[in-house]
Amino acid sequence: MSKNNAGIVTVDWKPDKSETLPLPNQIVKYIIDKISKGDWLVGDRLPCQRELAKILGVNRSTLVIAIAELVAMGIIESNFGKGTKIVNTTWSLFMSSAPPNWKSYINSGIHNPNVPTIQVINRLEYKKGIIRLSTGELSPNLIPHDMMEEALISVAKRANSLNYLEPLGLINLRQALSNYLSRYGIHVPPSCILIVSGSLQALHLISIGMLKPNSTIFTERISYLRSLRIFQSVKMNLQDVPMDKSGIIPAKIDTRHLSSGDSLLYTIPTFHNPTGIVMPERRRIELLEWCKINQVPIIEDDAYRDLWFDHVPPLPLKSYDQHGVVLYLGTISKSLAPGFRLGWLVGPEAVIEHLGDIKMQIDYGANSLSQWALTEWLESGMYDKHLEILRPKLIERRDITLQILERHFKNIATWSTPKGGFYIWLKLNTKINTAKLFNLAAESNILINPGSIYDVVENNCIRISYSYAEIDELIVGLQRLADLIKNITYKDYREICS
Amino acid sequence: MSKNNAGIVTVDWKPDKSETLPLPNQIVKYIIDKISKGDWLVGDRLPCQRELAKILGVNRSTLVIAIAELVAMGIIESNFGKGTKIVNTTWSLFMSSAPPNWKSYINSGIHNPNVPTIQVINRLEYKKGIIRLSTGELSPNLIPHDMMEEALISVAKRANSLNYLEPLGLINLRQALSNYLSRYGIHVPPSCILIVSGSLQALHLISIGMLKPNSTIFTERISYLRSLRIFQSVKMNLQDVPMDKSGIIPAKIDTRHLSSGDSLLYTIPTFHNPTGIVMPERRRIELLEWCKINQVPIIEDDAYRDLWFDHVPPLPLKSYDQHGVVLYLGTISKSLAPGFRLGWLVGPEAVIEHLGDIKMQIDYGANSLSQWALTEWLESGMYDKHLEILRPKLIERRDITLQILERHFKNIATWSTPKGGFYIWLKLNTKINTAKLFNLAAESNILINPGSIYDVVENNCIRISYSYAEIDELIVGLQRLADLIKNITYKDYREICS
Repeated sequence: MSKNNAGIVTVDWKPDKSETLPLPNQIVKYIIDKISKGDWLVGDRLPCQRELAKILGVNRSTLVIAIAELVAMGIIESNFGKGTKIVNTTWSLFMSSAPPNWKSYINSGIHNPNVPTIQVINRLEYKKGIIRLSTGELSPNLIPHDMMEEALISVAKRANSLNYLEPLGLINLRQALSNYLSRYGIHVPPSCILIVSGSLQALHLISIGMLKPNSTIFTERISYLRSLRIFQSVKMNLQDVPMDKSGIIPAKIDTRHLSSGDSLLYTIPTFHNPTGIVMPERRRIELLEWCKINQVPIIEDDAYRDLWFDHVPPLPLKSYDQHGVVLYLGTISKSLAPGFRLGWLVGPEAVIEHLGDIKMQIDYGANSLSQWALTEWLESGMYDKHLEILRPKLIERRDITLQILERHFKNIATWSTPKGGFYIWLKLNTKINTAKLFNLAAESNILINPGSIYDVVENNCIRISYSYAEIDELIVGLQRLADLIKNITYKDYREICS
Repeated sequence: MSKNNAGIVTVDWKPDKSETLPLPNQIVKYIIDKISKGDWLVGDRLPCQRELAKILGVNRSTLVIAIAELVAMGIIESNFGKGTKIVNTTWSLFMSSAPPNWKSYINSGIHNPNVPTIQVINRLEYKKGIIRLSTGELSPNLIPHDMMEEALISVAKRANSLNYLEPLGLINLRQALSNYLSRYGIHVPPSCILIVSGSLQALHLISIGMLKPNSTIFTERISYLRSLRIFQSVKMNLQDVPMDKSGIIPAKIDTRHLSSGDSLLYTIPTFHNPTGIVMPERRRIELLEWCKINQVPIIEDDAYRDLWFDHVPPLPLKSYDQHGVVLYLGTISKSLAPGFRLGWLVGPEAVIEHLGDIKMQIDYGANSLSQWALTEWLESGMYDKHLEILRPKLIERRDITLQILERHFKNIATWSTPKGGFYIWLKLNTKINTAKLFNLAAESNILINPGSIYDVVENNCIRISYSYAEIDELIVGLQRLADLIKNITYKDYREICS
């Protein structure tokens, strides 16, 4: 990473004490080199001098000489209290020309950067020793590596398993999915199925392929979609819809934002991310009817369906859809292997063909290896076998997590028992700003997804996941998190409250 | 596919003669169903009646009854000479509501559909019996499946090979690539490398992440980029640059289209697609110098580098780049396995980090399976071993193809001997419209890439590839293609000439 979230560059270099060039000169050379290559940009800051000296393995006095030189060259500005900042790339002084103005390019793109908290989460996940209390994927221990080996050997032997594939994806996989989907009352031919590189990509395809600027995307007030900028980047507006314990309330959709031909509704009706809510059948039919009458297509994200615990959840909206209103998204990223990066989009042929054409333009199709391997998983029955093994393991994790919560969070939060999926939506009793709690937790090597990334209205929730961290990590991590919340004294409380 | 290129829907259904519902009624029901689900849209046409009757397996008279009924319902319009068209979805007549206006959604997206010829190529590639004379990938026979099995078994055993990965891609792979790139004089740390899902995706990321509307992309007059709409879809302008036998001519770049901070130059300096040109070192340095002085970043697409035949080609532009001017693209799609869908983008850290963040938003990273497998290929030395085996096989294919051309094309075209890569750029002596020749060839089960998709100025070239079709297919296919060209009589000639 060239910078952390605070715009401070990362230094992963030390001067060579055996070289003849003096240490300060080596440091000056290194910093000029980073800037001249465009790695570091004007406006980026260096770590504070004490920290930088430590990283470089030099005395503070050595560093001071180097900094003074760079300040004299007009390259950095050292400002007590504000740190050391790169201010100018006046290359004409010592170089024949300047690098391209990368900052301007980076700021010009139509696609917005991620929400800052998400950027930090994406990085911290790979920090050594961190306990990931919110990660939305299976622990490596829950992924069946023995069966995977079997599938991959069979794939490697296929003569054509490593070439490009047809625009909608491997026909064998689409046929296997067509069979699989019919279990859930979705009866479609392979021509109505597009293989995508994870269902997130389906949202990207829809956002660039089917909507004009200022279109409205209706979604649950608390929504996974809020943590993305996939629609906002192409100038769509997210419009919150109130929820109750049955999920989104169609009668409360604000019809002022409705205009024919450019609205969509996005929902996760089954094991909703992050709240875990399951929409009952009655509400599903009501929602579908509302969307049909108002001609608003639905994106139904069904990523968690196979992860039910005691009862099979109601059938997908798509199974009731007689009029091609629903674009249905499925994936094995949650139930089998996120690293396959595979999902599927089911919809009217005309839409599937159009989005398949755009997919060919942006990445020339999903990877063949995973497509063949998933076909093998589905056709052989291994996928079902895996689910049967997985479910009791997830239930065990859920139950232990609920016990830990009961022990440490009884007086500070409330929650419901998830009926499937990965998440517990923890509502804190006090109005703590969870974005700030996120930072405190990260300092204690605990990674949480603060509710603020899913809900812009209320801000006292945390998404807890029992799928990724191991049991001992859940025990340690949740206790530490509870302590953090409890230890917030009145003074701290005032400080971190919004 | 719901429609072919002429907007004619595909019918893959037959009425059930054992059912009690009469055949015409079954046909009416089927067609209404396709339209009401949004599979077929207003404006789409049905196959001509003779053909449709054949597909449905019914008498012409049965079909006529069904069509008459649909016309009476106001759903289709039968117009002699113009065929049968879907004209209206007046659902109020027989349904409670209409499907969403999918046509409007499809036409609203900011991303353009593919060039029509490319759409047809993408589909015809999977037609049974077609000879693919232009396909830019290795034949399945040239992909080392034995070594692949070895790599995949080793990957399957890894505990963490199937989870999500860090934003820039697997660190082990980036480290292996950092070592690999240093062979070519590119010395960068893993933090300057972004793993992408094929290098095409790198172009998509740059187009949505770094450019504002009306930016200019300079490129070779004859360019692979012309066959894409990746930049045009986000309102960039492609600007042709004249070429000679050394490639793009920097002195001829039209500086009127140059404005600081929003221009880029795209080039394939090594085994250029489609012409096969190798830019000599002198021209490389000249081009880099021009871009440095004018502060125009270069996208160097180096997909074919490892596929040299007799001599190692000049070092990449990136290896001479001291000022972070070059964004370098590499991939194993051409040299090893396109189905891995893996490439890499090398550039200044600040750029890599920004594009990595956008990649996380649009597909949450490239697939882990391929990333681990490619690491294995690179670290084990298997990749180099494979290249040593591959090169003589490609040379053999090239030589045989040149012999076939010598035999059949001597009097109708000219070409050069490729020094690496996949392609022979065939220049026909007569000014045949190759887009039309493409259609004639397709009817004879021969798939060619007409020059018109790469060059909008001149139009008498064909890209021939010796990497995909087998030798016997090349023999049959090229002879058939030569015959097609020769058999164009004066009358046909006038007809198909532009």
